[in-house]
Formats: sequence, structure tokens, C-alpha cells
Amino acid sequence: MSKDRLILVCNDDGVTAPGIQALTEVAKDFGKVVVVAPDKPQSGMGHAITINATLRIHEHVSGDDNVQIFSTSGTPVDCIKLAVNEILDRKPDLVISGINHGSNASVNVIYSGTMSAAMEGCLEHIPSIGFSLEDFSIDADFSTSQLVAKKVIHQVLENGLENGVCLNVNIPKADASTFAGIKVCRQADANWEEEFEKRTDPHGRNYYWLTGKFVNRDEGTDTDVWALKNNFASVVPVQYDLTAHSTLAQLSTYEFNS
Amino acid sequence: MSKDRLILVCNDDGVTAPGIQALTEVAKDFGKVVVVAPDKPQSGMGHAITINATLRIHEHVSGDDNVQIFSTSGTPVDCIKLAVNEILDRKPDLVISGINHGSNASVNVIYSGTMSAAMEGCLEHIPSIGFSLEDFSIDADFSTSQLVAKKVIHQVLENGLENGVCLNVNIPKADASTFAGIKVCRQADANWEEEFEKRTDPHGRNYYWLTGKFVNRDEGTDTDVWALKNNFASVVPVQYDLTAHSTLAQLSTYEFNS
Repeated sequence: MSKDRLILVCNDDGVTAPGIQALTEVAKDFGKVVVVAPDKPQSGMGHAITINATLRIHEHVSGDDNVQIFSTSGTPVDCIKLAVNEILDRKPDLVISGINHGSNASVNVIYSGTMSAAMEGCLEHIPSIGFSLEDFSIDADFSTSQLVAKKVIHQVLENGLENGVCLNVNIPKADASTFAGIKVCRQADANWEEEFEKRTDPHGRNYYWLTGKFVNRDEGTDTDVWALKNNFASVVPVQYDLTAHSTLAQLSTYEFNS
Repeated sequence: MSKDRLILVCNDDGVTAPGIQALTEVAKDFGKVVVVAPDKPQSGMGHAITINATLRIHEHVSGDDNVQIFSTSGTPVDCIKLAVNEILDRKPDLVISGINHGSNASVNVIYSGTMSAAMEGCLEHIPSIGFSLEDFSIDADFSTSQLVAKKVIHQVLENGLENGVCLNVNIPKADASTFAGIKVCRQADANWEEEFEKRTDPHGRNYYWLTGKFVNRDEGTDTDVWALKNNFASVVPVQYDLTAHSTLAQLSTYEFNS
């Protein structure tokens, strides 16, 4: 344990969520912890940033000398930017985000504020990891997640992470007796099938609620969705270079300049 | 020209922005056009979706039998989901987004609502393209952008796009005499250096405005940032599979299960 190590903790469920408290407990074993998280739930915010509004920072009482807690009025990505530029006096050694209430496997990585916070840490060249538990319940049991977080953080601090790469770690709803272990995976090619629920307001006008069903169209056994289904925790290396490099050559044959 | 072709147009600057009007003009040459765009500016919204609030759809008068215009209270990604699931009676043949007021080259692709709309089209397996002009001005000249959009749309309709890949097209601030042509590129490894502007409100409390400087740390001549700097329009194939495939083997040597 090094008290000189500085660990930044964020999430998208908000500073009061049980998941971030579970992750803070784990982080304390690895160094000094600073929590900077949204002051309200920010699920599904993706990589949104606040350009057209002001941002506030509020310090909370933590009751632990080794932990500082701040909330901000911004998105998860705003939290990382505010932490690195305004709150912390030096670059953190690690960014961890979560533990998210609900899976961020497969394409959820794109919608997830929790993973965007990790991605933002990665953009700042800080080793960064997002953790998510496949259980939306406010009473979810985070003990398996804490065990996984401890192991993954330890390995990342030991071995580092390649530049431009962060980790998307998803944990199944499994206890000590059913948990199958940790598996390195690729992102499954799955997607949401939306079903908007149309309602009429008291003034006779229509409005919509976004709902949907997660549909896996990927039959691979090397994916994060497969891992979770088989009681493994999945570890997917995630990059912010979105270039489809394998398509560059084919695309160069298009006659854009004719 | 095929009037049977159905083209969905979106953006993140909002339904009234000059850029989306310029793109709608181009789209009309290729088929029937339905605009579904945010009712207010949504720059920097990334891949955010609206989970915790209701969504509204409002139809506007278009004055053109070949063009329908809708605004929604949601994000750019919400607009695509609402269009595909609620507004359109069939899947569109093409999604185009923009023309964004400001570049979405390099890492801006992650923060951009305009590109997230294109990405969402891609997730729905629809050929999708985002267009952005390197000029924030409300009076920007979109004539070079319209020329580029015409050529790129034509080539995509002719040749298709690989599954899981959409295009991020950025256009330099150049006129007919200085424009150098269209170039297929990779995403430059650049980033923002934030500078929060700290102010004090009339009640004595601090608040922050997010500002920043775009810093290119990539010296390649095959990048979108290089292209724009040299008066080329850049075309980057973008994928929603964020897996860092080249890192999978190395990561598998980490002792996560010890």
C-alpha cells in the first residue's frame, strides 16, 4: 500500500450511489483517494461535456483522512476534467470509475457515462478502468465486484496499460460459489432494440419514454456478453482511436475526387 | 435522383442551424428527405441518450413536398432513435448528420453529438455520414462543404459502407480556389488542454466555465488534422467496436486470476 499514490474515483450514478462507495472502499487499500462524481444520476450521458452552462464543485464531509469527496454539477467527463484541472494538485496515478449499477458490456460502452469517465482519464494519459456490475438494484451485492476490482487494479498498477487504452470491466451477478473468474474479452457486437412508450399528457399532447431490449447478435465465445452469461467477469481493452483501420485501404478506392 | 430513396438528416447544432439547412439542400438531390434534429443546440453531447426525462416530437412547416422537418426535445442520438422507431415508416437508406459548425476531426469525434448521430445510424446498420466545417461562425460559407457532401454521399450510395463503419467527414475553411480535394485519413492523436475559467457569482460562490485549447500531438501526414491544415477535406472511417484488438494478447498475460 502506498499512501503517496493518488487515485481518482468517479462514476455516473452520482456521488451517493452504493457502487461508488464500494469502489472507494477498495481504492483506499491502494493509496490516497479523491472522489469527484456527479451530484445527480448521469447514466447514459456518454461522453457529454458541459459547454453551454456553468459548473459547480461542492466538497462533502468524508469522515476519513485518506478520502476526499467532491461532487460537481457536470457530467462524468466534466468531473474528470474538473478533477485534473481544478481539484487535484497533481495528475492522479489511476482513474477508476464505477462500480456502475448495471452492465456496460458490448455497445453500452458508448452510452455509458461511467466508461466515458475512464476514457477521459485515458485521454489524459492516466491508467484508467471502469467497473460495472450486471445488477441495477440499489441493494446489489458488490462483494464479487470488490474482489474483481482489487485484482484488476493490482495488475494494472503492476503492469501498466498501453497508451490510448483503458479497461472496461464488467462483473456478473454471482457470489463466491458461482463466480467463474476474470476473462480478457472483445466487445460483443450487440445492440438495443428501442421501444418508445408513447403516452398522452394531461393537456392532450404526446410524449415518449425511451425503453428497449438488449439484443446480442454476436455468437463468439470470446466476447464480454458471453463471459457475463457464463459467470466470468470480462475485461475489455478499450481505445479512443475510433478509426476503422482495416477499412482505410478499401475506402481509398472510392472516387471521392472524380 | 431517386425519389424512392429515404434520407434522414440530423445534427447537434439544432434544427434551425444554417449547417443543417445547407445539408438538407444537398440531400434533396438524392431522394426524399426527413429532418429530425434537436430543438436546441446540443454540441458536446457525445452519445448521450435521455433515460430520466420524457421526449417530445414537434413537426415544422417545410414548404417543400420533398422535405419533412421534425424537432425533438432530445439529444442527437435520441433523434435517430425516435426517427427510426416512431417518425419514419421504414428504415432510411442513408443517415447524414451536420453540417456541424466547427471541426469534429481527431478526438472531437468522441464529444460530438453530430458524429454520435452518425454512429447511431451505423449501429442500426444504415450507411451513415457526419459532416463538419472547420468554422464556428453562424455566417460560415457552406459552399465547399456542400460540394464535398455531394461527392461523398454519391460515392457511399454507389459503393456502400462496410458494416459497423460510418464516415467522419471534415471540411476546411477553404473556397473553390484554395480547396485541395478529399483525402481518406486516420483520426489524429490530438486532445484538448482544458482551461476552466473560474468566476464568482453575485452571492460570492465560485463557478466554472469549460474552455480549452486543441493540441495536436500527432505528426503523421495521414491524419484528419493534417488534411484540414493543408486544405483537404478529411474522410475517416469510424467504428463503434472500441476493442483495442492489438492489446488483447498482451493483456491476456496479466495474472488477473492469481
